[in-house]
Amino acid sequence: MQRTFEIDPWKIVTHKLDKANKRLQESMTSIGNGYMGMRGMFEEDYSADTHSGIYIGGVWFPDKTVVGWWKNGYPKYFGKVINAVNFDKVNVWLNDQKLDLATTPIKDFELSLDMKTGILTRQFTVDNQETQVRFTIQRFVSVAQKQLFDVSYQVENLGSQPVTIRIVSEINADVSNEDANYDEKFWNVKTKAQTTDSGYLIAETKPNDFGTPQFTVGTQMTHQTDLKAVQTAETEKNVVNTFEGTLANQESSQFEKRVIVVTSRDYDDDATLKAGMEVLSQKVAAQTHQQLVTEQSVEWAKRWAKADVQISGDDAAQQGIRFNLFQLFSTFYGEDKRLNIGPKGFTGEKYGGATYWDTEGFALPLYLSLADQKVSENLLEYRHNQLAGAFHNAREQGLKGALYPMVTFNGIENHNEWEITFEEIHRNGTIAYAIYNYTRYTGDETYLKTKGIDVLTAISRFWADRVHWSKRKGVYMIHGVTGPNEYENNVNNNWYTNLLAQWTLKYTLESLKKVSDKKIADLAISKEEEAQWQDIIHKMYLPEDKKLGIFVQNDCFLDKDLQPVTSIPKDQLPINQHWSWDKILRSPYIKQADVLQGIWYFIDKFPEDVKKRNFDFYEPLTVHESSLSACVHAILAADLRYEQKAVEMYERTARLDLDNYNNDTVDGLHITSMTGSWLAIVQGFAGMRVSGDQLSFKPFLPKKWTAYQFRINFRGRLIEVRVDTTGTKINLLKGQPLKVQLNQEVVALKGGD
Amino acid sequence: MQRTFEIDPWKIVTHKLDKANKRLQESMTSIGNGYMGMRGMFEEDYSADTHSGIYIGGVWFPDKTVVGWWKNGYPKYFGKVINAVNFDKVNVWLNDQKLDLATTPIKDFELSLDMKTGILTRQFTVDNQETQVRFTIQRFVSVAQKQLFDVSYQVENLGSQPVTIRIVSEINADVSNEDANYDEKFWNVKTKAQTTDSGYLIAETKPNDFGTPQFTVGTQMTHQTDLKAVQTAETEKNVVNTFEGTLANQESSQFEKRVIVVTSRDYDDDATLKAGMEVLSQKVAAQTHQQLVTEQSVEWAKRWAKADVQISGDDAAQQGIRFNLFQLFSTFYGEDKRLNIGPKGFTGEKYGGATYWDTEGFALPLYLSLADQKVSENLLEYRHNQLAGAFHNAREQGLKGALYPMVTFNGIENHNEWEITFEEIHRNGTIAYAIYNYTRYTGDETYLKTKGIDVLTAISRFWADRVHWSKRKGVYMIHGVTGPNEYENNVNNNWYTNLLAQWTLKYTLESLKKVSDKKIADLAISKEEEAQWQDIIHKMYLPEDKKLGIFVQNDCFLDKDLQPVTSIPKDQLPINQHWSWDKILRSPYIKQADVLQGIWYFIDKFPEDVKKRNFDFYEPLTVHESSLSACVHAILAADLRYEQKAVEMYERTARLDLDNYNNDTVDGLHITSMTGSWLAIVQGFAGMRVSGDQLSFKPFLPKKWTAYQFRINFRGRLIEVRVDTTGTKINLLKGQPLKVQLNQEVVALKGGD
Repeated sequence: MQRTFEIDPWKIVTHKLDKANKRLQESMTSIGNGYMGMRGMFEEDYSADTHSGIYIGGVWFPDKTVVGWWKNGYPKYFGKVINAVNFDKVNVWLNDQKLDLATTPIKDFELSLDMKTGILTRQFTVDNQETQVRFTIQRFVSVAQKQLFDVSYQVENLGSQPVTIRIVSEINADVSNEDANYDEKFWNVKTKAQTTDSGYLIAETKPNDFGTPQFTVGTQMTHQTDLKAVQTAETEKNVVNTFEGTLANQESSQFEKRVIVVTSRDYDDDATLKAGMEVLSQKVAAQTHQQLVTEQSVEWAKRWAKADVQISGDDAAQQGIRFNLFQLFSTFYGEDKRLNIGPKGFTGEKYGGATYWDTEGFALPLYLSLADQKVSENLLEYRHNQLAGAFHNAREQGLKGALYPMVTFNGIENHNEWEITFEEIHRNGTIAYAIYNYTRYTGDETYLKTKGIDVLTAISRFWADRVHWSKRKGVYMIHGVTGPNEYENNVNNNWYTNLLAQWTLKYTLESLKKVSDKKIADLAISKEEEAQWQDIIHKMYLPEDKKLGIFVQNDCFLDKDLQPVTSIPKDQLPINQHWSWDKILRSPYIKQADVLQGIWYFIDKFPEDVKKRNFDFYEPLTVHESSLSACVHAILAADLRYEQKAVEMYERTARLDLDNYNNDTVDGLHITSMTGSWLAIVQGFAGMRVSGDQLSFKPFLPKKWTAYQFRINFRGRLIEVRVDTTGTKINLLKGQPLKVQLNQEVVALKGGD
Repeated sequence: MQRTFEIDPWKIVTHKLDKANKRLQESMTSIGNGYMGMRGMFEEDYSADTHSGIYIGGVWFPDKTVVGWWKNGYPKYFGKVINAVNFDKVNVWLNDQKLDLATTPIKDFELSLDMKTGILTRQFTVDNQETQVRFTIQRFVSVAQKQLFDVSYQVENLGSQPVTIRIVSEINADVSNEDANYDEKFWNVKTKAQTTDSGYLIAETKPNDFGTPQFTVGTQMTHQTDLKAVQTAETEKNVVNTFEGTLANQESSQFEKRVIVVTSRDYDDDATLKAGMEVLSQKVAAQTHQQLVTEQSVEWAKRWAKADVQISGDDAAQQGIRFNLFQLFSTFYGEDKRLNIGPKGFTGEKYGGATYWDTEGFALPLYLSLADQKVSENLLEYRHNQLAGAFHNAREQGLKGALYPMVTFNGIENHNEWEITFEEIHRNGTIAYAIYNYTRYTGDETYLKTKGIDVLTAISRFWADRVHWSKRKGVYMIHGVTGPNEYENNVNNNWYTNLLAQWTLKYTLESLKKVSDKKIADLAISKEEEAQWQDIIHKMYLPEDKKLGIFVQNDCFLDKDLQPVTSIPKDQLPINQHWSWDKILRSPYIKQADVLQGIWYFIDKFPEDVKKRNFDFYEPLTVHESSLSACVHAILAADLRYEQKAVEMYERTARLDLDNYNNDTVDGLHITSMTGSWLAIVQGFAGMRVSGDQLSFKPFLPKKWTAYQFRINFRGRLIEVRVDTTGTKINLLKGQPLKVQLNQEVVALKGGD
């Protein structure tokens, strides 16, 4: 645990420039607007350790797959979101001394990210014998105008002598990724131009060997300042504007850089792209800085009005949940259905910014409650649009139907470990489950009937081909899989995977009853196929141990040496950093919820005692070395009224990054697992469930808290739930009256109550 | 199947320069003397496709491990035998036309490897309008003087005009491997010098990051010729001697290049290495070419006298078995206990020339019968000398005792697939079994008591730590292994692995009774440890199916969809080239003998009906996509008197390379599996067994053969076995009288009978 920022309910703030943990501070002060985002690196050059990263949603490059020993079926490339053309660069000279916070003496430093508005403010005073100059630098990526990045400087001369100031603002295409092979550069400049006070650069990602599209990105900068623009020389890969002036004692200057970023994802050709870029530049040029800031604040206020979670009595927890919501929304707010949620969002290079099953498994439930229905629908459509890729992945393995990828940008599998690429197929079940989850929560079957059914049918066909009939046992089995617990590989009959396969077939058959005859015809499902699915549903093998009364994670699991996690010497944790892979595999230790993941998915379908026996058996064996684990255990613990365990699990999720629990936040934030803390509160502490059309709650108040409250939207309503020492209040803030269940009783919400 | 050479009982001969299959011809005409060896590339430059390779035993380089996703415990480097400084290079000009068989018009081509003498002869006539010149080129690496390579030219002018001839002989250190990353060169020249008719070059392998030794190789060339030596310029990385002359009509010239190759493996420093190189050069300089050739023929004759297998009625089979023996002995004849047998010997780069368990599993039984006992002892000592590395490998996995590597040069594991590196631990059992096999065959317990016991104890300690106690089943288990059948990974309780673990413990405890008290004390085996081993022996889990009466390959195997290999569409074979890895893994198809490997190891311990039921069950599921599989099935089929199946399996092994069965002989020969054809004849067709002190035979004659005979040495005797249509004759050629069992009866061999 490492806490580098102060506790504050609404701010991520520090008064220390922590050079030793610069990257950590940069990760934590990342900003984004779904369209693009950036780490918290400084605008000016910084001569000590730093990791500059700007990322544009959906702009990626396919890097050749590198493995020691090739296996048939491996994907040809591994995609990665590439570091964008650098457009935030601004360098400053004071009396011809270049500003470099690694070396320039400063005082009164403050770095503060306001989560209410998404504005990052940096303040410091340059403090030389000859000069005292105060800087206040604010930047944001606009939520109101997605293509806009804005950074503004207020520079005040506090010294007694006049100070000459020179500000050099540029757009630079000479950029690479830290994880690039051989520091290759990804950008080729197509065209660029500049005036004394503005400039643009249009660059294209370099060609690739895999036939995936190249991306063109246009970046235009304009400036508003009382400094004087002076002529400047551009180089081959950048455009530069330089501004100069002299500040008398107590005098101050303003400088603002506005950057418009457009991509070929939104424009058909370079001409329209260039035109679009200029239109947008002119549009923002017509607005004052204050107007841009106000827009930004208003948009964030709207989001918080729907989503904020308030916790009393625990500011650290309060800050944690808000930070998680803020970063989630900065990564994805669902406006662009072509985009999705990478495990690190716009905050780092790791995992290449691609899509994992985290989205459907952990992010969707949150967006269902906190964003418009359309946002969740877009998340589902993303997969519908990638059906072709999923068919391709299944074909690569010689199988029918669709296999959704473990890691992808375009539907084509990207990952290259056989035990995951080929075997962690439970992901397919979560893609199907998300359709069920969406339909159950919204009560709206339109998506299911029009598009969801295509995905369900394709996945069902995969399962039906992937199972095999075990003559000896007279059941259908699924051999050779990796479950959610990646600490076992190539196992047989993972209960969770078999359950989801069986459930998918069942749900697909039910759903087919609801769709149009034309759809049925289009899907070309024969009676024989339906009969085969029915047969699999009835004869699917779901390993159980009658004596222990539990579901068995997979064949042979109970033959292991079942010592609890508490028996592992502390200095050997986390085991994935201390044990050889084979030792991890044959150990009974579970990386993340596996059987319990299945119980969470269908939490209202299992009797209390079954949930209890399984939780009591698997929880002590779980090391939670995945950030997607603790929240599931928190919800189940709460469901079983293991309140202390639920709180313990919540705390593992809420400040994972703020307190750098896993000591890896330097690489970027754990975006997809940030939903965990919200799930732990809403589905866990407050016990929110939707079964049939019934919304219900079964809340408890964690001991160290005096109150918590949150809002959810549910079927056109906005509902506020407050839990404090006096009990639970449920308030209908918007929408039609509704009956909800609170503990055992049903209460009617009429609004204003 | 692709046959590029003619059928001949003693020669590998062709009269066609097959440019399309040049690499194949080069692999097949490889020569070696255990110390060094080379592919059959031409001495002169060849401008079309060719693969030049010269390899020196034990001279290798550690190449950085490259994997997509790192796993704890992976080795840091992958070792490879590097292409040696090129010393066979000789270029020829006729009337200033450079000889290049890719373009120069020739006739009367013959390429012939005489397996009796190990001499490779190449003949052709250059046939231009102006010149007809006959070349006869012979080369060999001397078996009598290991450091000597000799290539001799007889050049005769058949034309009517005089011909000027220039021969340029060189040693060149500008060499790389085809499989090198980025074509890196491995050799740095340390020193070199030349006279008009001789030269030497001393080069060192480039430094590495892994602390493994660099190797220095000294190469000196001298020449015997009636041509005139002329001055010539050397370059930075080579030494060159040039010779010229004019041949009148019908006149001929001789040219001979003798190269001495010495390495830092045999000399402490460069000074002694250089001195040693010169001493050897002078020694051979004192001998005539005829003397060198005679030495060579005599040494090979000695080998054949002990080892030849004669087959009547099937020249293809005759050629096959001789080719296999010839190439095996060219790779390894046991003089240097620091060396071992790489899967491709000196015939190619693949598998890096490292040591696999093939040696103990498949090569040792052959060397026991065909070479001096000392040779087999050296093979065992190789592992004893690498105990430190084996301890290291076990430590890397957090385990006690010794784990012998899958792939190695120095005892340190080299391979980097977790399912093999960490899990294919059955290899450890074969290292132990080899000690038993050696002791049983020789009847000599000296090695066992002095060194073998160290290895057995270390391996037993590994097994004792690697098993776990399954409380539920009340047995010891071994989870997470890959058996000999590499078409299943990370399985539990592989019968073969568990059997060998149990057997090793048993054999170690028995052997400990025989060793000195001092040894016992050195090994520090406590009563508790012995007791623990006993407990594991008694309670080891060996999966069996009572109903089928078979041993079960591993847990869950019988749950698979058990369709025979005959059900696989022909166009999907071999499955490893057509199926995604996961499909192979969950299929029932067996790459190489697994349960049957164990039955072969202890063939006299299992009752007939047990052997039969297991063979009948597993054979139809085996695809034999490893070259180490068919011979085991051949032996068991013969044992069960499935004569036709035995012959079918023999044929898969005997001409694997000669007929390029697996279409991969271009990469080099399958050296370690060449023992398979001999095993199939001697242990299979002739049914040779040794149990206790009793040598026995139970022969049959394959239908299409009229006779076969072979010789074995057994405990100081040389015995000839002849099987023909009239029956079996066993002849004691040398040594003390002996009783052997032939079928049911015991016959006394007195010699001369």
